[in-house]
Amino acid sequence: MKDLWSQPIEKLAPAIRAGEISPVALTEACLDRIATTDDRLLSFIHVSTTALDAARAAEREIAAGHWRGPLHGIPVGVKDNYLTADMPTTVGSQAPGLAFPMRDAAAVARLRAAGAVPIGKTRTHEFAWGNVTPPVRNPWDLARVPSGSSGGSGAAVAAGLCVAGLGSDTGGSIRMPAAACGVVGLKGTFGRVSRDGVVPHSWSLDHAGPLTRTVTDTALMMQVLSGYDPADPACQDQPVPDFAKSLGRPVKGLTIGVCRNHFFDGLQDDVAAATETAIDDLAKAGAKVVEFRIPLLEFGLGAIFAIELSSSTAYHDASLRAGRVADFTPDVRTLVEMGRLVTGADYLKAEQYRMALMDEFRKVFAKVDVVVGPTTPITAWKRGEWTVQVAGQPESVLAASWRFTYPYNLTGLPAISVPCGFDRDGLPIGLQIAARPFDEPMVLRVAHAYERRHDWKDRLPVALPAAVPPVPE
Amino acid sequence: MKDLWSQPIEKLAPAIRAGEISPVALTEACLDRIATTDDRLLSFIHVSTTALDAARAAEREIAAGHWRGPLHGIPVGVKDNYLTADMPTTVGSQAPGLAFPMRDAAAVARLRAAGAVPIGKTRTHEFAWGNVTPPVRNPWDLARVPSGSSGGSGAAVAAGLCVAGLGSDTGGSIRMPAAACGVVGLKGTFGRVSRDGVVPHSWSLDHAGPLTRTVTDTALMMQVLSGYDPADPACQDQPVPDFAKSLGRPVKGLTIGVCRNHFFDGLQDDVAAATETAIDDLAKAGAKVVEFRIPLLEFGLGAIFAIELSSSTAYHDASLRAGRVADFTPDVRTLVEMGRLVTGADYLKAEQYRMALMDEFRKVFAKVDVVVGPTTPITAWKRGEWTVQVAGQPESVLAASWRFTYPYNLTGLPAISVPCGFDRDGLPIGLQIAARPFDEPMVLRVAHAYERRHDWKDRLPVALPAAVPPVPE
Repeated sequence: MKDLWSQPIEKLAPAIRAGEISPVALTEACLDRIATTDDRLLSFIHVSTTALDAARAAEREIAAGHWRGPLHGIPVGVKDNYLTADMPTTVGSQAPGLAFPMRDAAAVARLRAAGAVPIGKTRTHEFAWGNVTPPVRNPWDLARVPSGSSGGSGAAVAAGLCVAGLGSDTGGSIRMPAAACGVVGLKGTFGRVSRDGVVPHSWSLDHAGPLTRTVTDTALMMQVLSGYDPADPACQDQPVPDFAKSLGRPVKGLTIGVCRNHFFDGLQDDVAAATETAIDDLAKAGAKVVEFRIPLLEFGLGAIFAIELSSSTAYHDASLRAGRVADFTPDVRTLVEMGRLVTGADYLKAEQYRMALMDEFRKVFAKVDVVVGPTTPITAWKRGEWTVQVAGQPESVLAASWRFTYPYNLTGLPAISVPCGFDRDGLPIGLQIAARPFDEPMVLRVAHAYERRHDWKDRLPVALPAAVPPVPE
Repeated sequence: MKDLWSQPIEKLAPAIRAGEISPVALTEACLDRIATTDDRLLSFIHVSTTALDAARAAEREIAAGHWRGPLHGIPVGVKDNYLTADMPTTVGSQAPGLAFPMRDAAAVARLRAAGAVPIGKTRTHEFAWGNVTPPVRNPWDLARVPSGSSGGSGAAVAAGLCVAGLGSDTGGSIRMPAAACGVVGLKGTFGRVSRDGVVPHSWSLDHAGPLTRTVTDTALMMQVLSGYDPADPACQDQPVPDFAKSLGRPVKGLTIGVCRNHFFDGLQDDVAAATETAIDDLAKAGAKVVEFRIPLLEFGLGAIFAIELSSSTAYHDASLRAGRVADFTPDVRTLVEMGRLVTGADYLKAEQYRMALMDEFRKVFAKVDVVVGPTTPITAWKRGEWTVQVAGQPESVLAASWRFTYPYNLTGLPAISVPCGFDRDGLPIGLQIAARPFDEPMVLRVAHAYERRHDWKDRLPVALPAAVPPVPE
C-alpha cells in the first residue's frame, strides 16, 4: 500500500491486523507528512514526542496477537481543546495565566485504550469560539480558511497529516470544517459522547466527535468514542449500537426529509446544484423524498447566540475578573465581553425556543427517517475575508457559515457532513444528514449509501502548493 | 360529628363513604365558616358559586354506591395561581390587561375527577412572588401574617374554611405558610405533581402540592395529585406508590440526618428548642440520629435569587413591554424589574451551583433516610413588619422566612412541614423533613410517626377574634 498517510482506517486496519502494515511505519508516514507540509498548512499546534513509542507498543501488541480493534495503531489528531496527559493544551489561546490540566479527556483515554496513537494537537479557533481557525490553511486552496472551530483537525485529516481527528461542535464546529475541507464529520446526539476533559464553550450545545476520511471510519471512531460517562453530567446512559451494522444497507424504503425553508435560503449556486443532485441521487437509490417547512427555524439565531454568549461568558468569568480576556484575540474577546449583555431572562427565553424547536423536529421525525440538506451555504472563503457574496447578497461569513448547522446543536440531534462534490473552484461541498435522537445508525446508513455512489472520498488534496502570502488575521 | 369544618379528610372520608356525613352538609359548613370568619381572615379572593352543586352531585353518586375515593365530597381551597374553569384567576394581581384562561389546571382536574369540591380561590402573594400574602391574616393571631405565598390556603385550612388546600412552592411557599399557620404542607419531588395550568413563577423551581390538617390527609391528596403529565415538560414519568402504606410505620431503624450548619443558624429560641425536642423525640422512637454539615449551603441565596429573578422576569416580559408591571404591587414590581439585571452568565453559574448542591445532598442521602430541621427560623411575624429579631440580630423577614426551605427547591427534593408545637406567644412552629428524590413515602412515614406522638393536629385556631386594625401593606 503506497502513501500510507493517504489511506482511511477502513483500509489500514485489516492490513495492520494482518501484520502487513506497521503502525510504526504508518505513524512515521504521518509525522513525515506533518514535517513536509505543515509549514504551509499550519494545522498542528503541537506534535507528539511520544507517538512513535505508542506506535511501537501497538506494533508489539499486534505482533503478539493482541489486536485491540480497528483503531489499533491509527494516528489521530486531537483538537487542542481536549486535555491530554502527554501534550500541553492551549485551546488556541496565548493569554498569560491560563493553565490547563495535564490529563486525558475521556475521548482521548478511550482512543488510547483502543490502541489509537495521538499524534499531536490540532489547532482550534481560540476557545472554539469562531469559524476561521487562524492560522490554519485550507488544503484545497492555501489562500482559504479551513472553517472552524475544528479547522486544524479538518485540514490535517483532509491533507493526510493524520488518519482521523477529534473535533468539537457547539454550532457546527465539526461539520463546518468537514464540509470546507472535504472530509466526513459527525456530531452525535447530545449526550452520546462524553465531553469530560473537553474545555467547555457552551455546556448545553457542546458535542465531541470525530472527523475522518470516510463514513466507515466515522463509524469506527464513534464505536470507541460513544458510551455513558458520569463525569459528563449531560452524557446519557444509552446503549451503544454496533455502528458497522448500519453500513452497506440500502436507502430503499427510507423516507428522506427536505426542509425547504431556512436550509435552502441563500445558497451559492454550486452548493444548491450539488445538494439537489444529492437528493435526486438518494431518490434514484429508492428513497422517498418528503418536503416540509419549519417556520420556527427563522428565529433560531437569537436563541443560539443568547445561549452561547451566556455560557461562554460564564465559563470565562474567572478570566474576565482576572483581566485575562484582554489578551484574547479581538473577535473572541468581543464575544466573551458581549455575553455580559445577555440577561438571564433572554437566556431562558432562548431555552424555551429550543424546546419548541425540538417539538417541531419531533413531529418531522415522526414522518421521515433523515433530514438532508447542505452543511453550509458557502464553500471555503478566502483568509481575511469577513463578508461573502451569497445568492447575490453580501453576508458575513460568521452568519453564513453556521446557519445550517446550529439548528442541530439547539435540538441535540445527530448530524453528519459528508463530501458532496466540488464547486467551480474545486472547493469541497458538504451534505448534511440528521436523524432522530440516538439514531446515529440511520445517519451513517444514509451517509454511507450516498458516499458509495461517488468516488470523492478517494480524492485528496495531496499536492499542497507553496505557501501563499500571509493575510492579517 | 360536630363542627364538620374542623375535621380532617381522614375522619370525614369514611363517614362520607358510609353515608353518615353528607358532602352537602360539609360544604355548607365550610361555606358558613367562610361567611362568618373570612371578613377577618381574608383568605379567599373568590368563593365558588357552584361548590354546592358539586357537593350535591357527590352526594348522589355516593348514595348510588359510586364512591370515588377519600377526596369524594371534600371541600378544597384552590390557590389563585391555579387556573380554574368555573372561577376567575387573578394570581393576586389587579394589573389591568391581565387575563388568564378559564380552564382547569391539571391538579384541579385531578381533584375534580376524584370527587373533591373546589370551594373557592385562596389568596396568593401577587404572582406567588413574596412571603406575606396580603391582606390575609394568620388565624392564630390576626395581627400577624400567614406567611406566603400560599398564605390563603395556609390560613383557610388552619381555620377550617376548607378541609384541604392547594399551594405552590418555588422557594418555600407551601411549607412556609404551613409552618406559620400550623398545618401540614408538602412539596413533592420536582416532577412529581404536574404544574400544567399553574401560572409560572420560576419553571425550574416551581412545585405544586397540598396543604392539609394532617399527614394522612397529605398522603390522600398526593395520591390524587401525583402522576405523569406530558403537559408539564418537567413532570417525570415515575411510578406513583401507594402513599397510605407509608403511614403507621415505625421510625425505628431509620437514620435521621441533621445538618448542623445553615439549617440551625439564627433561630428564634423557641424554634430551636422545639426542633431539638423533635429530634430527641425521633431518637427516642428508635431512629438513629446522624449530624453532618454541607458548607456549600452558605452560597445558596445568590443562586436561588439569580434563577428566580431571571425566570420571573422572562415570564413577565410581555407585561414589562406592555407597561403592566407598573401596576404590580411595589415589592413584586421591584423584583420583576430587578430580574433584568441578572445576566445569562449569572443564571448559568447559579445552575452550576445547583448541580453541586444536588451532589452534596446525594452524598448525604447515601447515609441517611431523611434530613430533619426547622421549616423556618421564625414564627409568624406581625403585619407591616419587615425586619424581625432573630437570635439577637435584626434580619429582613424576606431573608429569614425562606432560608431553610429554598435549598429543597434548588435540589428538587421532597420536603414536608409538620406542626412541631408552639412558641411562647402561642404561634405554630414547623418541622421540616426531606428525603431522596421521589421518596415521598419516607417523608410521610417519618412525618406521620412524629405527628402521632403529639396532639397538635387536633388544636385548631377555631375562635377567631375580632378584626385587628388594618396595617398599611
